[in-house]
Amino acid sequence: MTTTLETTGTRTPVTVIGLGEMGTALAGAFLEGGHPTTVWNRTPERADALVAKGARRAATVRDAVAAGPLVVVNVKGNAVARELLESAGDALAGRAVVNLTDGTSAEVREVARWAEGQGAEYLHGQIMTIAPAIGHPDSVVFYGGASTVYDRLHPALRLLGGRGSLIADDPGAPVLYGMAVHGVMWGTLNGFLHAAALLSDEGIELGRFLESAGASVSALVSFLPSIADAVDRDDHAVEYGALKHHLPSLEDLVRESRARGIDDEFPAYTLDLVAKAIGEGHADDNYSRLIEHFARR
Amino acid sequence: MTTTLETTGTRTPVTVIGLGEMGTALAGAFLEGGHPTTVWNRTPERADALVAKGARRAATVRDAVAAGPLVVVNVKGNAVARELLESAGDALAGRAVVNLTDGTSAEVREVARWAEGQGAEYLHGQIMTIAPAIGHPDSVVFYGGASTVYDRLHPALRLLGGRGSLIADDPGAPVLYGMAVHGVMWGTLNGFLHAAALLSDEGIELGRFLESAGASVSALVSFLPSIADAVDRDDHAVEYGALKHHLPSLEDLVRESRARGIDDEFPAYTLDLVAKAIGEGHADDNYSRLIEHFARR
Ligand SMILES: NC(=O)c1ccc[n+]([C@@H]2O[C@H](COP(=O)([O-])OP(=O)(O)OC[C@H]3O[C@@H](n4cnc5c(N)ncnc54)[C@H](OP(=O)(O)O)[C@@H]3O)[C@@H](O)[C@H]2O)c1
Ligand SMILES: NC(=O)c1ccc[n+]([C@@H]2O[C@H](COP(=O)([O-])OP(=O)(O)OC[C@H]3O[C@@H](n4cnc5c(N)ncnc54)[C@H](OP(=O)(O)O)[C@@H]3O)[C@@H](O)[C@H]2O)c1
Repeated sequence: MTTTLETTGTRTPVTVIGLGEMGTALAGAFLEGGHPTTVWNRTPERADALVAKGARRAATVRDAVAAGPLVVVNVKGNAVARELLESAGDALAGRAVVNLTDGTSAEVREVARWAEGQGAEYLHGQIMTIAPAIGHPDSVVFYGGASTVYDRLHPALRLLGGRGSLIADDPGAPVLYGMAVHGVMWGTLNGFLHAAALLSDEGIELGRFLESAGASVSALVSFLPSIADAVDRDDHAVEYGALKHHLPSLEDLVRESRARGIDDEFPAYTLDLVAKAIGEGHADDNYSRLIEHFARR
Repeated sequence: MTTTLETTGTRTPVTVIGLGEMGTALAGAFLEGGHPTTVWNRTPERADALVAKGARRAATVRDAVAAGPLVVVNVKGNAVARELLESAGDALAGRAVVNLTDGTSAEVREVARWAEGQGAEYLHGQIMTIAPAIGHPDSVVFYGGASTVYDRLHPALRLLGGRGSLIADDPGAPVLYGMAVHGVMWGTLNGFLHAAALLSDEGIELGRFLESAGASVSALVSFLPSIADAVDRDDHAVEYGALKHHLPSLEDLVRESRARGIDDEFPAYTLDLVAKAIGEGHADDNYSRLIEHFARR
């Protein structure tokens, strides 16, 4: 059975296992893209709307897996993903499994190894968007696995988001990319909410702040490539903006927070990191030097 | 004495007090812009290079202040700024003081009140760039004070950075804007360095990560206006991406960090905040709900 059927005008049959908020969006995208779509969910009624749009409801995971060459899995946790795939028995052999279930790299690799042991091909995908953005040209999915498999499945997978890409042959890599992006997100959001507390305490609307300072905030991400490069090269020399220049500004932020009685833990955390690095002789180094704190074992 | 001399082809004389790394750059920009520039520094030799380029060295702060209508101050801390200005005595009356010295809002307001009490006009400016970027068209300085003063001084001040702007009539506001931008910066940098530790531990180069994920990282700042709006309206309802959806991803990040033996304090901090908010009944709310943590008194 060939799975790149663009040339014949037909579309690869797709199976979607798991119809939560995200799985429903995934199955909807395949249906809209003209793929014969078989669905299975533990709570079968969650498939009703998809069935009304033309999806076929399978009675068991095994039937669902037997229905076609491409099996997309999206459930709550990789223990569940593995358990469901196990219930397909030997129907899994020869299938391409695309597991889009979040987890740690070790959990994901465990599912990958097991599925490949069953004779299946395996890609892991990390979805970087919320369900309603599935199918959008800007939506990102990071994939890990064999490029031959990815390239063959691309006509179907690109329906999920215009900016999907294969980032590694390691199926564990996409979740790490996802964690990295989300980790930056939480740092940015926490920094912004602390700033919001400061500005709100002064009666300054955040909308007004962003009107004047939005460009400065957006420009912050432009620092990251040089930080990345310093970490990659393990060379933390810098001409301007060294750690010693961060210190007085951090002290001001901590003092301002305390004077207003708003949270001082978040800025004091950074002040401690910077002061510690300076104490260790890194006053003239790039902020990238703090990698040694985060990477500590 | 008029200070907008563009029409007559001459430039307002400028005095710069404080010739550290930044003050030297400021004086250099005024000189290059054709302003007669008088300088003073505690350690007089630091003025040598500027004098060689045409600056006039004043022997005392009082002489420096007496030299012209616009007095720019940039030293280490506002206690020093105030002490130096005090030494100018009655020469300060009728001068426009532009203080570019970092500090807390209370410290800055204290200098502003005092200077105005001496019969001076006062603007505070928060420089958002490193010294070598002074004069660049993209460089930002946030000013606070009377718009009549700002508008009059603009022909000179714009030489410091193309994106200077008056953000409030309150001289205390610019330092808050600066702290807010820097606070987001530290959050972003810490999040990125934690991510860097994770990726580096896996042997993934950060440069390679940014090639694939740079757009996702850059897109993060596009979330901030909606967070800002939620905080301004004190309305934390959200349709997608609620706190309960952050929780499993945060748990994955903490588990991944622990499994690798890298820092888990930074992600666990966010996990705790999110779990606490969920425990207080905010599972379906926007991340903006965490403002209540940061704004706590
Ligand atoms: N929602 C998003 O916007 C989003 C964004 C990015 C990534 N993701 C990821 O996508 C995956 C699914 O998320 P979701 O938001 O769709 O979750 P959800 O709405 O809570 O749905 C969970 C799915 O897992 C199934 N499930 C849970 N436990 C099961 C079990 N023991 N046996 C069989 N099925 C079980 C549920 O079946 P029932 O219907 O029977 O409960 C349902 O299909 C997660 O890894 C999530 O992190 C979601
Ligand atoms: N450098 C930057 O890239 C940068 C960026 C943004 C904001 N800023 C702000 O600009 C201000 C100056 O920073 P900088 O980097 O130029 O600092 P710096 O190189 O350390 O220079 C400090 C200046 O303050 C003077 N000073 C210190 N204590 C004094 C005292 N007791 N009496 C008289 N003068 C005294 C020094 O005089 P001596 O020469 O005699 O020591 C020198 O002129 C700070 O508020 C800083 O936060 C700097």
